[in-house]
Amino acid sequence: MKNPPSLEELIAAFRCLPGVGAKSAQRMAFHLLQRDRAGAARLGAALGRVLDAVRHCERCNSFSETDVCGLCSSSQRDASLLCVVETPADLLMLEQAQCYGGLYFVLMGRLSPLDGIGPKDIHLDRMLQRAADGLVKEVVLATNFTNEGEATAHFISEMLASRGIKVTRIARGLPVGGEIEHVDSGTLARAVIERRSV
Amino acid sequence: MKNPPSLEELIAAFRCLPGVGAKSAQRMAFHLLQRDRAGAARLGAALGRVLDAVRHCERCNSFSETDVCGLCSSSQRDASLLCVVETPADLLMLEQAQCYGGLYFVLMGRLSPLDGIGPKDIHLDRMLQRAADGLVKEVVLATNFTNEGEATAHFISEMLASRGIKVTRIARGLPVGGEIEHVDSGTLARAVIERRSV
Repeated sequence: MKNPPSLEELIAAFRCLPGVGAKSAQRMAFHLLQRDRAGAARLGAALGRVLDAVRHCERCNSFSETDVCGLCSSSQRDASLLCVVETPADLLMLEQAQCYGGLYFVLMGRLSPLDGIGPKDIHLDRMLQRAADGLVKEVVLATNFTNEGEATAHFISEMLASRGIKVTRIARGLPVGGEIEHVDSGTLARAVIERRSV
Repeated sequence: MKNPPSLEELIAAFRCLPGVGAKSAQRMAFHLLQRDRAGAARLGAALGRVLDAVRHCERCNSFSETDVCGLCSSSQRDASLLCVVETPADLLMLEQAQCYGGLYFVLMGRLSPLDGIGPKDIHLDRMLQRAADGLVKEVVLATNFTNEGEATAHFISEMLASRGIKVTRIARGLPVGGEIEHVDSGTLARAVIERRSV
C-alpha cells in the first residue's frame, strides 16, 4: 500500500529542496493537499513563472528578470566600487545594512576544491572583466569568513594584484554589541591582530 | 533593493509549506534557481498534476486518484474490521507494520476545540455511515495518544457504543525494545494499569 502515483511523485519532487527528507516531503505534500490547495496552486504557478523569467544579470551575475538588473543600471551607484559576494542573499544583506553605495559581482558560489568547485564555476573570468572596465577603482571582497570564503578572497586578491586594482576586504572583529567575555577566541585574536589606531 | 518580482513571489509561495519561514523560503528558491532548475520544473509539474488527480476516497476518505481507492476496493481485506486513523501518514505506517488486514477510515484531522475543529471537520458523519454498512463488526481506534487523539477516540467510542458496534483501542505500553529504566513515568504507569494476564 502506497500513496497514489501523482502524490508519490510530488513527495519525490519535494526532496529536491535543501534539507527536505522523506518525512518532511510527505508532510509538505499532505499539508498542501489537505489544508492549502490554493497555496499549492500558487507555488506551482510561481515555479513556472520564475523559471521563465529569471536569469543572471549580465553585469553583476545576480538573479534578474532583465539583461541588466535594476541595481547595475542605476545611476545612483558609485561605479568606482565593486563588491564581490558569494550569493544573492549576501548582496541583499549588504543592501539592508545600507552601508555601501557601489556595485556588485555575485560569484554564485565559492572556491571549494573538495566539492570540485574551481575558478571557472564561480565565474572569475567574468568578474575580472567586470573589474577591468576602467571605472572600477576598488574591489571590496565580501566573501564569508569561512575557510572556503577566505580562500576565495585570497585567490581573487592575487588575481587582481597583478592588474593594479586596489583590493580591500571587509573587516573582521567583534560584532556590534559584542562582549569580550563571550566572544570566541578566534574572533578575539583576529580583533587584536587587526586593531586600528583611534 | 529586492529580488526580482517573480523570485519574491516564489519565496512568498514557499512560505505556504509547514515550518518554512522567510530565510528557508529564500534558501529554497535560490537553491532551485541556481543549482536545480530541473528539480524546480519537476516540482511545478508535480504540483499541477496532484491537484488535478488527487481527491478523497469515497469510502476511507484517504487520498486517492480514483473514486474508491485501491485498498478499499481490494478483495483481500477483511471488511469486518474498520480502523480509524487521523492521517494518511498513520495509515501508511500501519500498512508498513503489516499487522492489520482490515479496512480504514481516515479522519484527516482530530477533534481540537481550541483550533475550532469539531466533529463535522473530521467527517464523523461519514465515518458512522461507513461503520454502519452491516459488514463492519469491530472499529479499531488508532488515533494518536495525544490529548486530542485521546479525546477523538473517546468521542467516537461514545458515538458507536449506542449503535452496538464493538469498539477497540490500539494498546499503550512500553515500546518494543523499551527499557523500564528509561521509559517516561506516564507510559510506565499506563503499562502497569493496562497489564494483561499471560
